[in-house]
Amino acid sequence: MQDTILAFKEHLAKIDAYSHAMGKLYYDSVTVMPKGGSEVVGKTLGVLSEEEYKLSTAPELKAWIEKILEKPDEADEVTRREAEEKRDELKKLEKIPMDEYVAYQMDVNAAQAAWHEAKEKDDFELFAPHLKKLVAFNRKVAAYYDPDKPPYDVLLNEYEKGLTMEQLDLFFKDVRDRVVPLLREITERGRRIDTEFLNQDFAIDKQRLFSDYLMELMCMDKTRSAIGETEHPFTINFTKNDVRITTHYHSDMLMSNLFSVVHEAGHATYELNIGDELVSSFLGSGASMGVHESQSRFYENIVGRSPEFIDLIYGKLTELFPNELKGVTKEQLYLAANKVEPSLIRTEADELTYPLHIMVRYEIEKRLIAGELEVDELPQVWNRLYKEYLGIDVPSNKKGVLQDSHWSGGSFGYFPSYAIGSAYAAQILDCMNQDMDVFAQVKSGDLQPIIDWLSERIYRYGCLKKPGELIELCCGAPFDPKYYTEYLEAKFKRVYQL
Amino acid sequence: MQDTILAFKEHLAKIDAYSHAMGKLYYDSVTVMPKGGSEVVGKTLGVLSEEEYKLSTAPELKAWIEKILEKPDEADEVTRREAEEKRDELKKLEKIPMDEYVAYQMDVNAAQAAWHEAKEKDDFELFAPHLKKLVAFNRKVAAYYDPDKPPYDVLLNEYEKGLTMEQLDLFFKDVRDRVVPLLREITERGRRIDTEFLNQDFAIDKQRLFSDYLMELMCMDKTRSAIGETEHPFTINFTKNDVRITTHYHSDMLMSNLFSVVHEAGHATYELNIGDELVSSFLGSGASMGVHESQSRFYENIVGRSPEFIDLIYGKLTELFPNELKGVTKEQLYLAANKVEPSLIRTEADELTYPLHIMVRYEIEKRLIAGELEVDELPQVWNRLYKEYLGIDVPSNKKGVLQDSHWSGGSFGYFPSYAIGSAYAAQILDCMNQDMDVFAQVKSGDLQPIIDWLSERIYRYGCLKKPGELIELCCGAPFDPKYYTEYLEAKFKRVYQL
Repeated sequence: MQDTILAFKEHLAKIDAYSHAMGKLYYDSVTVMPKGGSEVVGKTLGVLSEEEYKLSTAPELKAWIEKILEKPDEADEVTRREAEEKRDELKKLEKIPMDEYVAYQMDVNAAQAAWHEAKEKDDFELFAPHLKKLVAFNRKVAAYYDPDKPPYDVLLNEYEKGLTMEQLDLFFKDVRDRVVPLLREITERGRRIDTEFLNQDFAIDKQRLFSDYLMELMCMDKTRSAIGETEHPFTINFTKNDVRITTHYHSDMLMSNLFSVVHEAGHATYELNIGDELVSSFLGSGASMGVHESQSRFYENIVGRSPEFIDLIYGKLTELFPNELKGVTKEQLYLAANKVEPSLIRTEADELTYPLHIMVRYEIEKRLIAGELEVDELPQVWNRLYKEYLGIDVPSNKKGVLQDSHWSGGSFGYFPSYAIGSAYAAQILDCMNQDMDVFAQVKSGDLQPIIDWLSERIYRYGCLKKPGELIELCCGAPFDPKYYTEYLEAKFKRVYQL
Repeated sequence: MQDTILAFKEHLAKIDAYSHAMGKLYYDSVTVMPKGGSEVVGKTLGVLSEEEYKLSTAPELKAWIEKILEKPDEADEVTRREAEEKRDELKKLEKIPMDEYVAYQMDVNAAQAAWHEAKEKDDFELFAPHLKKLVAFNRKVAAYYDPDKPPYDVLLNEYEKGLTMEQLDLFFKDVRDRVVPLLREITERGRRIDTEFLNQDFAIDKQRLFSDYLMELMCMDKTRSAIGETEHPFTINFTKNDVRITTHYHSDMLMSNLFSVVHEAGHATYELNIGDELVSSFLGSGASMGVHESQSRFYENIVGRSPEFIDLIYGKLTELFPNELKGVTKEQLYLAANKVEPSLIRTEADELTYPLHIMVRYEIEKRLIAGELEVDELPQVWNRLYKEYLGIDVPSNKKGVLQDSHWSGGSFGYFPSYAIGSAYAAQILDCMNQDMDVFAQVKSGDLQPIIDWLSERIYRYGCLKKPGELIELCCGAPFDPKYYTEYLEAKFKRVYQL
């Protein structure tokens, strides 16, 4: 058995080397690479990913997995979980006939190109036939994976293990019942928040210094993390000892970099605090997209947009921008950071309206994959839901149903994890508040106790546990969406004096 | 034959993908990677380099090469040259018994560790036994490669194809006869050059802006090149469409970054102008270390330290540093950039004394590999030669024979290419001056005609031609060291008013 485990581990380490190299190539390409490098990067990724695929589907790998899982008690917990994960992966790969899989890859490529063109030309018809193919294939894949479950549940499980429509229906019902009326109230009766002072030029080299300050405030270990610059900010971890966040500076958008860094630092903090025993395993990163978003949004929205955090960073901000922020109070800054404005574009949405954008997508995806909605009806349904939930008219498909790239990449069931992350975060806050006064801690400027609390209950487990298990382990109760809507109501009633 | 060529090319493309990925991992590790990432990078490089080695020594590769070279007329020039290069590489690999090769790799690792310790503790004895092993192995390897040639010639050929002791003896004789007395004259009778104004704080963010200015001046295409920051500046090319230079900023050393960027931009200019037809071949980079250095030193020393170049950049420099350079004239700047000072450390040497540092190493290596000098005699010989050529006493082995890492890595025959590059550059200058007034061109601020001239005669060929062929093709005559010493004499007599 020990030999089998050793061979299995060595094989995984090889796969890991390829992932690592490809990750670095990706990181380089979106941070520092000149445009001219893209062709050769494409070729190199082709060679490496082919090799990685071969390693991931090698017959000997399958044999080792079977041998380990025959006598699971003889393997340690980490190895057993790795074997289970890899077995599930292999099983799924085997269920899709190779020719269908290859054809689908080509369909996705074509769909992505068509989506780009459709968005540019604001012409949904260009994209519709491609989208139909992708929807059909994803319904088929769901049936291959698990013919006994509703197809959308099968797809949800790909992004957030164990998440179901039953849970999401409850979650979004709560959002619909409480956030939609709250938004209406704010629009009709809320006070006016002045953000005029943000319309200035905030020098980028000073914003860079502010990023360094934020990373230090968030206790990011400099010997294990770094910040880069890119078009669309993201976080990538090569191991827990090499975690990169990225940001984008706009001289006319001070808040953009501020909350982007806090958000990405939240992702990074998770990765930086994974258990040491998982470093050289396949389980050494965050448990799921949803749990990851719970951390980034916990820091960005709950911590970062709190009066206590604004109080904390006010000194440094006004030190860096003494003229620009002359006469601006902490309260003004706090209000500006929490201004609510129904808008068309998801990625620019504020904390309160964000889940409404996701709800539109959830309802559409759910019915699309169930076969209850036709692709051709999408623009009309989209626009109706935006009017209903956000109270706004969608002027074009470009700013409506065509705005996101997810569907063109064949991702259905991905969107909900964005919103579910915020809801996890609110429940975690409630629970953390029972152990310490979270916002007093934030105000003190020492975030380490918060990080320690989260490390103990979430971070250290990496992928050892499933998302639902983690939340239950952390909070002592299963996921419950009420904390989220309660949090939003309390916060935004205060902000808008309602 | 077409199928063979296709298979051969595909195989080379695969090898190239691995080199590319490893190059990116290296670049990342010395520019932006946090320290914590080094362990996993080491593992990944291990996996990738093993795979690259397998590909490079694959039996099918050998078969394709043989088939192509049996009927060389049926292949195009690029393919033929690639096949020849790869054949030579394979032949050499085959000549060293595998067990000796593996043992040597371990010896090199041990020698590098011992060298680090020896340098730190200033204790040559710690390093001597390791160095003896490496010298013995390199003598043996030379005999494996070509038993009919003097071993040092065989080793020289590894770094600069076709370069021989016969040529180098002539070259260094000229350096000894003309530069050594010139240096003595400068030390004894030259005017005093004031560099006091350089002992100030030059803000790094302004130095960064100056780097951008220099890169633009040197016509570096931004869509195909980028600058990064690192400990020891270098240039790396992934293809001609993705070339990275690096620099290191010291706030108290304005000249360091200035000439570092010009030097690396010289390397980059070479790579950026390789012929398009070589991009996806193995021949798509500079011909040799020596030819590469000829370009970096042409730009750094001949162009960069000329009065015309100083005149050109003076405006931008004083614009960026108005207070720091208040009252400093162009002439003062020019003199400061060309100050001669015999020193102990090669990497800090000025243009005139640099070849003397190399000459010391050449004479030692040559006799060491011929078996005419014992490792134990090295410190004594080193110190004697420094006294003889540079007129200075070496206070410690740390600042003497132990300063460079080359020998501990098993590189013997590498040093001469540094000096030979400067000599190529002087000959190229002479030749270029027959077609245009080079320094008038520099003064005009438009360097493109110079780049075009070099592209036509050197850059575009990549590795298609050997170093000696290239110089002869460019200058219409074989390499002749006299241009170099004449150039140095003329320049430094002017600088020191002799």
